[in-house]
Amino acid sequence: MPFSRVSVEDIAYFKSILSDVRVIWGDAISEDYAHDEMTEYGSFLPDALLLPHSTEEVSRVMRYCHQNSIAVTPRGAGTGLCGGCVALHGGVVLSMQEMKRLLEVDKVNMTATVEPGLLLMEFSALLEGTGLFYPPDPGEKSATVCGNIMTNAGGMRAVRYGVTKDYVLGMEIVLADGTVTELGGKVVKSSSGYNLMQLLCGSEGTLCVLTKAIVKLIPEPKANISLLVPFDSLDQCVSCVPDVLACGCEPTAVEFMEKEVIVAAESYLGKQFPDKNADAYLLVRLDGADEAVLEPRVQRVTDLLLSSGARDVLLADTDERKSGIWDARGAFLEAIKNSTPSMDECDVVVPQENVAEFVQKSRDVSREEAVRIRSFGHAGDGNLHLYVCRDALDDETWEARRAQAMNRLYSLAKTMGGHVSGEHGIGHAKIAFLEESVGETQMSLMRGIKKVFDPEGILNPGKVLN
Amino acid sequence: MPFSRVSVEDIAYFKSILSDVRVIWGDAISEDYAHDEMTEYGSFLPDALLLPHSTEEVSRVMRYCHQNSIAVTPRGAGTGLCGGCVALHGGVVLSMQEMKRLLEVDKVNMTATVEPGLLLMEFSALLEGTGLFYPPDPGEKSATVCGNIMTNAGGMRAVRYGVTKDYVLGMEIVLADGTVTELGGKVVKSSSGYNLMQLLCGSEGTLCVLTKAIVKLIPEPKANISLLVPFDSLDQCVSCVPDVLACGCEPTAVEFMEKEVIVAAESYLGKQFPDKNADAYLLVRLDGADEAVLEPRVQRVTDLLLSSGARDVLLADTDERKSGIWDARGAFLEAIKNSTPSMDECDVVVPQENVAEFVQKSRDVSREEAVRIRSFGHAGDGNLHLYVCRDALDDETWEARRAQAMNRLYSLAKTMGGHVSGEHGIGHAKIAFLEESVGETQMSLMRGIKKVFDPEGILNPGKVLN
Repeated sequence: MPFSRVSVEDIAYFKSILSDVRVIWGDAISEDYAHDEMTEYGSFLPDALLLPHSTEEVSRVMRYCHQNSIAVTPRGAGTGLCGGCVALHGGVVLSMQEMKRLLEVDKVNMTATVEPGLLLMEFSALLEGTGLFYPPDPGEKSATVCGNIMTNAGGMRAVRYGVTKDYVLGMEIVLADGTVTELGGKVVKSSSGYNLMQLLCGSEGTLCVLTKAIVKLIPEPKANISLLVPFDSLDQCVSCVPDVLACGCEPTAVEFMEKEVIVAAESYLGKQFPDKNADAYLLVRLDGADEAVLEPRVQRVTDLLLSSGARDVLLADTDERKSGIWDARGAFLEAIKNSTPSMDECDVVVPQENVAEFVQKSRDVSREEAVRIRSFGHAGDGNLHLYVCRDALDDETWEARRAQAMNRLYSLAKTMGGHVSGEHGIGHAKIAFLEESVGETQMSLMRGIKKVFDPEGILNPGKVLN
Repeated sequence: MPFSRVSVEDIAYFKSILSDVRVIWGDAISEDYAHDEMTEYGSFLPDALLLPHSTEEVSRVMRYCHQNSIAVTPRGAGTGLCGGCVALHGGVVLSMQEMKRLLEVDKVNMTATVEPGLLLMEFSALLEGTGLFYPPDPGEKSATVCGNIMTNAGGMRAVRYGVTKDYVLGMEIVLADGTVTELGGKVVKSSSGYNLMQLLCGSEGTLCVLTKAIVKLIPEPKANISLLVPFDSLDQCVSCVPDVLACGCEPTAVEFMEKEVIVAAESYLGKQFPDKNADAYLLVRLDGADEAVLEPRVQRVTDLLLSSGARDVLLADTDERKSGIWDARGAFLEAIKNSTPSMDECDVVVPQENVAEFVQKSRDVSREEAVRIRSFGHAGDGNLHLYVCRDALDDETWEARRAQAMNRLYSLAKTMGGHVSGEHGIGHAKIAFLEESVGETQMSLMRGIKKVFDPEGILNPGKVLN
């Protein structure tokens, strides 16, 4: 390990920049900072936890760590699922949690400028009443907006609105050596040299520290409606998705869910789901400026679904009915997590036409490897979340079955033209799968790029690539 | 210049790969290949013009040129406006014009796979009747789809649908040393390592040769309507654009045009424009699955425009009326070009709120530098096209006034938070403006990336960066 441990002198220097209270070290660092949401992927406490309040402070920390070969792991809210924000090689965790202002909402240009620690749910609350709306909608609302940028998070509304990278207009970044530079701005298109900003989206803190972002907003769609659509089988349910997408109804979200997962969510939330007579459900959400623009689109997709084998189309047009459904959807991950002492996660994305087949084959994997697998996901964009559950397995059996099941799932995805991660990223937990998926030529280009941005390799070492 | 000239031995080798007829050299090369649409930016004939038919041929040419330090300039249809596809340093022009098949239209995944020489207009004709639609719509329909990818072209429909980069799902590329690799695929989202594909969009052939692209299609919007909206002044016209964008009518295109440019287009086309009593016009296009989904949106924007000072809102809902307007809009560039022996072009993009002010100030520049400037552009995304016209100026006066005017326009854009190019790219003509705009830190990151992809610097040398 080529990095220096943080010494007493280093701590003194950090305190001189950040003040005593924002430099935490040794045993004073909470165990929370040793992992993200996937405790399964190990515990890695940093030598020091730094809580900067300004870009200038971040820049000075980076310059110092660069000169002194100290590893720096930038961290948002720590809600990731691949171990992307943990200090694998010790050193410093640079937590952005206290830089969390919404700096500006620009109504004319329809942009917002945020600091890196601002949470999605805080951002969304602050935008209320402005008439503007930030479309990216990952399940985890206590993630930071900027953490979402650094993993290129997707979420429920990606079908209509695209993913996080599509909303990033500007960035203020600090490079590994402490240099501060601003990319992009309040312009919605650009062909002005290499697209560094798009390269940085999803780079998981390995190329720079993001200290400010300008994101695009859209006019708030004031009306929305959700359709809960029961089917006799998952296959039938998922198979009609391409027609839903092609019919011109412009869905915001198209999710699939199975009865077992719904039941788990009910018990986790202590709340009844509106319908659970069917084996599988499609959940379709439409939105628009008002009821008038929605009506013809709802008609269009309802006709299609009923002629494609749906048992029924249940309209959720009141807030209560909508939240009954979407709260359950939002609780799937926690409900599954709650049902097992430990689990592993797979976030593949496959071509639309292979979604049904992938889910079918994941059941074969579950049966053949004798390990429970639960899945749900974004049927509208082919991004599936599969959870391999430990349940009552002993250590050895679990390790073996988990490894087998995960390998088979990723290998299935690759055979079908899929990618390792649709929206969660690579972190340290998925590097081997990424290497296997994209091959040496591309890994080598990525390593070259890493060296351009971070020649000493101090930024989030051991993530995305080795 | 560190590159080798193409020798008789090189020609013999190229012929052994490509056959005699697809290797053209010396005087046999048409002058057309010495420039793009901007002859103003000089004439640069390559030593040899190669017309590959397959990725394998491209790969062998690249491997050879890499080993022999021969500069390679990839070229699509040569419709660029910044000199991006000309052989500044001699060597080989690799014209993709004969690799022009539409390899697949995948209706379930809603993708198309194209070879690099396929023209936009050919692609659009081939998609007719499939029910699918490729949104990017640059004015120049005889450009190639892949050339559009390599410059991240924008076009008229960017307001609703985004720019070319937003439609690129997969790429087959040949690296400088001849290595072939495939990026992305038929998946619509991904967080699987650094986003190399987005980095390559807009890299203007300096990082790789694009030999195949998978692009995203959407359900064809079967209905559309255009609104021609006369205003008393350009300022009034442009000032209401933010409200149009914010009102929730989801416009596909929002263009502004001035009477002088309309008159030039009329005389160029020999066709009357439906209305030219006003000084300035906004042209708003809406589209959707059918008339029913359009109606409430048209109502919404019409009410808004009439209450924002529009003299009238003229509906173009027949094919004839639509083409009367859009043909004129499509002819603006050619009409201006036709009105002057020579011109220079500026394709800045500025924040929405600064569009009106930028256009106003460009008039000051025109007056103060005593040179005619015509402009039109994408009011909906802040991307303006300004043409500095030579008219009857002598060489020396023209050079001086042009330089002054161009410098002032770019400097104005920078002051307003704008970028050098919204959609045309950098080529060799805009490098100095790019350097001035983004600064040394970012140029140096770009140079580092260039070296990762093309260590010998043989790919399109002298473009985007030096």
